[in-house]
Amino acid sequence: MRIVAALGGNALLKRGETPDAEIQEHHILRAVEALAPLSRAHDLVITHGNGPQVGLLALESDADPALSRAYPLDALGAQTQGMIGYWLAQALHNAVPARSFVALVCQTVVGADDPALAHPSKFVGQVYSKTQAERLARERNWEVRPDGSSWRRVVPSPMPREIVELSVIRQLLDAGTGVICAGGGGIPVVREDDGRLRGIEAVVDKDRTAALLAESVGADALLLLTDVAAVEVGYGTPSARAMRHTSVEELRGHEFSAGSMGPKVQAACDFVQATGHMAAIGLLEDAEALLTGSTGTVIQALPPSTAAPARSGSRPAT
Amino acid sequence: MRIVAALGGNALLKRGETPDAEIQEHHILRAVEALAPLSRAHDLVITHGNGPQVGLLALESDADPALSRAYPLDALGAQTQGMIGYWLAQALHNAVPARSFVALVCQTVVGADDPALAHPSKFVGQVYSKTQAERLARERNWEVRPDGSSWRRVVPSPMPREIVELSVIRQLLDAGTGVICAGGGGIPVVREDDGRLRGIEAVVDKDRTAALLAESVGADALLLLTDVAAVEVGYGTPSARAMRHTSVEELRGHEFSAGSMGPKVQAACDFVQATGHMAAIGLLEDAEALLTGSTGTVIQALPPSTAAPARSGSRPAT
Repeated sequence: MRIVAALGGNALLKRGETPDAEIQEHHILRAVEALAPLSRAHDLVITHGNGPQVGLLALESDADPALSRAYPLDALGAQTQGMIGYWLAQALHNAVPARSFVALVCQTVVGADDPALAHPSKFVGQVYSKTQAERLARERNWEVRPDGSSWRRVVPSPMPREIVELSVIRQLLDAGTGVICAGGGGIPVVREDDGRLRGIEAVVDKDRTAALLAESVGADALLLLTDVAAVEVGYGTPSARAMRHTSVEELRGHEFSAGSMGPKVQAACDFVQATGHMAAIGLLEDAEALLTGSTGTVIQALPPSTAAPARSGSRPAT
Repeated sequence: MRIVAALGGNALLKRGETPDAEIQEHHILRAVEALAPLSRAHDLVITHGNGPQVGLLALESDADPALSRAYPLDALGAQTQGMIGYWLAQALHNAVPARSFVALVCQTVVGADDPALAHPSKFVGQVYSKTQAERLARERNWEVRPDGSSWRRVVPSPMPREIVELSVIRQLLDAGTGVICAGGGGIPVVREDDGRLRGIEAVVDKDRTAALLAESVGADALLLLTDVAAVEVGYGTPSARAMRHTSVEELRGHEFSAGSMGPKVQAACDFVQATGHMAAIGLLEDAEALLTGSTGTVIQALPPSTAAPARSGSRPAT
C-alpha cells in the first residue's frame, strides 16, 4: 500500500514546552517508533506541521534589525523543512536501515486568484500592542488584527492546488524510498501568468496539503496523526461521543472546531471523496492500528452500514 | 555529461553585505543565470556554501535564552539547506521550466575516528571577550580560541567520507532531474558502531564534499565556482601568474592559502586524481566557459604538455 502520514505540530513539541532542539529530537524518536512499522511494510510519505518551529524562527529573525531584516515566511518555512526533514530522515534511517528515506524541500502552489489572499485570517508571530502593530503594518505592509487583548500579524491561508515536486515524490516512492515532504503545508508559492513561481507571505494548512499530496501520489490511505484518540461529536459537552467507523456523508453533517479538528475532518473527507480510499484521524502512537481500523476515527466513502468493517465486533451486534 | 557545480559562499552574499533574504535571492538569480545553460544540456548537481547563513542563524538562535537554548550546528545547517535549496530550486525552475529540480536535505558521514574531531580548528559564530568565551566553554562544553584580539568558538572540520542520500541523488540524476544537495558540505553526522547516524557539532568543508559528491555520482566534471577568475601562483606578489591549463602534478607542487584557494585546489586535485576527469576553478559567471576550458583554471590528470588542450591557442606558440 501507499500511505501518507501527516504529523500534527505537537508530534514535535507539546503545548507549553520550550522549543529547544533536544526536546524536539526526543519527540521525533517517539514519532518514528510509531511510523517505523508502516515504513517497513508500505510506501510511506510523511508530512508534518511546523507552527512552533516557524514561530520561533520568525521571532528570532525579527529580533535584531542590526543583524538582518526579518525574513519572509517562505524562507522561514523552507528552513523548518530542512531541519524537521533532517531529524525525521535520520531517525527513520536509524529505525529502518533497510529502507532509504529522504527529505525534500517542497513548494505548494496556491491560486493567485484565491479569495483567501485578499482576506488574511491566520495569526502568525508574536503579540504586539496596538501602537506597535499599527506601526509594523505601515512599515512592512502587514495586516494586523486584535487577538484577545493584544495584536498580531495575520497572513492569508489559501488552499493548496499543486505540489511542485510531485513528479520527484512519485518517482522516489515507486523506487521504494520513503519521502518526507511538504512540511508546514509546503512553501507557499503562486504561479505567475508566464509560469514562473514566486514565494508569498502565507501559510497553507498542512492537513489540506496532506490530502492533496495523498490524492496526487495515488495513496491508498491518509493518516492524520495528532494527540486525540478520535474525532468526537459534541466535543467538550456531556454528550460527547467518539466517532469510530464513519463516512464522509455522516461527518459533513456535523460542525467541528475551525482551529483544530475542523481542517482535519475536511481534509480527510476531501481525500476519501476524491479517491474512494480511506482516511483515519487519531493518535500518533496508534498509526499502525489506525490503518487496520482497529482504533481512532476511520472514514470511508460509504456509510458504515454498507462498508465492510475492518474487523468484526467493531459495532454492537443487532 | 554529468556535472557537479559548487557555489562558493559569496555566490549568495558578498563580503560586507547584510545577510537579508532579498539580497541573497537577488544573487541567486545571477547564479542561476550562469547555471541555466549547463542544466539545459547536462545532468547537473549543485552544491553550495552556507557560511554567512549558518552564522546568522547561530547568532539569532543564541541571542535570547528565554526563547530557546542555542541550536546545535547540525540543525542549523539543515535549516540553511532548506532555505538555500528552496531559493535555488525555484530560480532554476523559473529559468529552465523544461527540467525538474529538487533540493534534498543531505547528511555527510565523517569518520568517528577522524583525528580532526579531537582538534577543533574551524572558527564559527560571533566574537567574545576572553571571559565570556571561557564561561561559554565551561557552560556548553565548547572549545574556544583567540581570533586576533577577541575569542571565538572552534569546531572540528573532519573529512567527508560518505553522502547518506547518494542512492537517491543518483536515481534522480538518472531520471533527468537536477539535484541541489549537500549544502554547507552536508549536515555532519557520524555512523555509530551499530550503523546508526548521529549529528555532530562540526563543519565539513564544502569543496571537499563537492569532490566526494562528484566522484560518487560518476561526474564527468567538477566546477568550483567562486569570485576569482583563476588559481594564481604567487597570489598577492608581483610575480603572480594565473594558471590556465594545469595538472594535479603541477598544482601539488605549489602552496595555496588554507583559508580560501587551498581547499578548492585540493578538492579539485582529489577528484581529478580519483577519476581521471576534469575539474575547473573560476568565476561563477564563467561556468559554461570553464566546462569548455576557454577560461579559468582547468585541471586534468595529465600535464598540459600531454593532455589535449580544450581549444587551440590556449598556450603561446613555441
